[in-house]
Amino acid sequence: MRFIIQRDLLIESIQHVMKAISSRVTIPILTGIKIEATQEGIKLTGSDSDISIESFIPKEEYGLEHVEGIEEGSVVVQAKYFPDIIRKLPLKTVELITDDQYKVTIKSGGAEFHLNGQDAVEYPHLPKLHTDNSFELKNDLLKDLIKQTVFAVSTVETRPILTGVNMIIEEEHLDFVATDSHRLASRKIPLNLNNENISFKNVVIPGKSLIELNKIIEDNEETITISVTENQILFQTKNLYFLSRLLDGNYPETSRLIPEQSKTIVHTKTKTLLQAIDRASLLAKENRNNVVKLQTKSNNEIEISSNTPEVGQVNEDVTTESIEGEDLKISFSAKYMIDALKIIEEDHVKIEFTGAMRPFIIRPIDNEHILQLILPVRTY
Amino acid sequence: MRFIIQRDLLIESIQHVMKAISSRVTIPILTGIKIEATQEGIKLTGSDSDISIESFIPKEEYGLEHVEGIEEGSVVVQAKYFPDIIRKLPLKTVELITDDQYKVTIKSGGAEFHLNGQDAVEYPHLPKLHTDNSFELKNDLLKDLIKQTVFAVSTVETRPILTGVNMIIEEEHLDFVATDSHRLASRKIPLNLNNENISFKNVVIPGKSLIELNKIIEDNEETITISVTENQILFQTKNLYFLSRLLDGNYPETSRLIPEQSKTIVHTKTKTLLQAIDRASLLAKENRNNVVKLQTKSNNEIEISSNTPEVGQVNEDVTTESIEGEDLKISFSAKYMIDALKIIEEDHVKIEFTGAMRPFIIRPIDNEHILQLILPVRTY
Repeated sequence: MRFIIQRDLLIESIQHVMKAISSRVTIPILTGIKIEATQEGIKLTGSDSDISIESFIPKEEYGLEHVEGIEEGSVVVQAKYFPDIIRKLPLKTVELITDDQYKVTIKSGGAEFHLNGQDAVEYPHLPKLHTDNSFELKNDLLKDLIKQTVFAVSTVETRPILTGVNMIIEEEHLDFVATDSHRLASRKIPLNLNNENISFKNVVIPGKSLIELNKIIEDNEETITISVTENQILFQTKNLYFLSRLLDGNYPETSRLIPEQSKTIVHTKTKTLLQAIDRASLLAKENRNNVVKLQTKSNNEIEISSNTPEVGQVNEDVTTESIEGEDLKISFSAKYMIDALKIIEEDHVKIEFTGAMRPFIIRPIDNEHILQLILPVRTY
Repeated sequence: MRFIIQRDLLIESIQHVMKAISSRVTIPILTGIKIEATQEGIKLTGSDSDISIESFIPKEEYGLEHVEGIEEGSVVVQAKYFPDIIRKLPLKTVELITDDQYKVTIKSGGAEFHLNGQDAVEYPHLPKLHTDNSFELKNDLLKDLIKQTVFAVSTVETRPILTGVNMIIEEEHLDFVATDSHRLASRKIPLNLNNENISFKNVVIPGKSLIELNKIIEDNEETITISVTENQILFQTKNLYFLSRLLDGNYPETSRLIPEQSKTIVHTKTKTLLQAIDRASLLAKENRNNVVKLQTKSNNEIEISSNTPEVGQVNEDVTTESIEGEDLKISFSAKYMIDALKIIEEDHVKIEFTGAMRPFIIRPIDNEHILQLILPVRTY
């Protein structure tokens, strides 16, 4: 194998595949990056078995030559050293050469590295997906769906299925739902399926996969293709191939958790409420639960308060836009409320309560497609 | 105690005194910030016994009113909560009020915090220094002296005196010297003492104190006054008072370590050499010592190389500006060399070697006042 490549493109590709590489894998060769050179270009692969990422650098693109002098071949290099070496090379281009002992020579300017590599034949083959369950999304919309839900997945393994995000396609809508059983985040968008008949309810993507995917895909309007099989999901753009396993098991039916009636409705500015909760939580951190209280008052005011006897107490009156319905006094996790309000880009939110012991709902005003649900905490 | 203060000034003062506050102190009240209000302004104090910092916010300055409604008094607040609270308040001003139970009320907009405080009488008194050993420096020059030496102090406690920087005044020159016995950094500047007769050789300032001081003083041409007693040193600007203990013991005589003759002299570009050493060190990190080799070659070239059999090897030919004297092959710590070259702002350096087993010297060309010395490593 031999080629000369634009260094910045190689660095970008390395950063992408590194998202899948872990030093704690059971198959030793997976601590490496697989490099394959063909006349079409250079392909890098990283995998930890759960997530596999391929990043392709075409020989030519938009009339620019990215790679030259290609002699085909492949090798696996140690991911612990390769990225830093490429990043610190002196010139804008770098030449890679392998010999028949899988020794990799890296040349740029006066610098010459010789790294011990491994035979790429030892590297596991990535499965090729065969499915008709494919649909397309814009990159930026997929990023929104991830950001607005993935923070609510469970981080404990007591119910593994809850560590994933449930992806549902029904009636030409795509819905992402995540819950750790104390709160729930959901985002729904209309989906144009071009008359294809795709529908599924029980696809559960590991939260970790979506977090890594979100780091790699750019925030633009380019198209990403999503393909689903029984146990894997593939996200594919022009030069990127992101494969993740799906979680086994049945995702709980969450729609029945969402209250249909409400007894107290508060309209308020998102940021004002977020900052008041954030301040109140400063003194709530000594408590394991980080609990703050919300109480309706007269003149459209709510009081946010928290009390830790050893440290002190805090209370803040927040003027809302309106309070309708019954008086209310409720306690909840400041962290969950901050998480929920942070991902709402709209300036105004509506909060619907159904009493101090029932879950409550936060939604942006004029956007029914984002829903955040939080279970209150009993305080005595 | 009661006052209303500009919040950004209070935040800045808190950040300064926090540099002296540690959660691991034997005197519990030192985990707090002492706040004192007088008609002149507000003074904050933080201390861990080794370092004490006072930051003063004058009531008025440059015709601006920083503090209003002052009722004199003092209190100690918990440093764990106070900084975050002040930082997250909603308005540009904040009111502080204490009651006779040392309860501190913090008000800004609708937010109101009540924190448990402590009686300031319990807070240790900072010593007042009485000394004629005072001199003045510009802030930016003091920052240079610190940056160019403090990285070379010892980080192990086997010889505690080496964890400090030796400050010497002799013959109208100020000299900072640091060594961990494997390398040495020194910076000398001429000092205008206005005919006062100040001279000392054995003042040793803890490296940690200088690192914290460097974070607080601004990079400008304002004047800082330095006063030295037998066991303490005070750095004082208009609104800041930074007191540190000095280290006990005799600092070793370092001047005899510096070779007076050299056998090989290399002139080269600082950055080119720095980057080549940095690259070579990528593969040297598996070795405990992070050792790289330098070898003179023909055509004014030097070869920088490193070899870790399990990983691979690297070599790079660097074109220098000149090589005079004997051929040379020497091994040394890449980290020490990188540290030394990083603090040299000049574009060109001169390296003077006296054989493979003797310490070598790095100096900027045309600046005899900066000197870096490194002991080589024996390799077989």
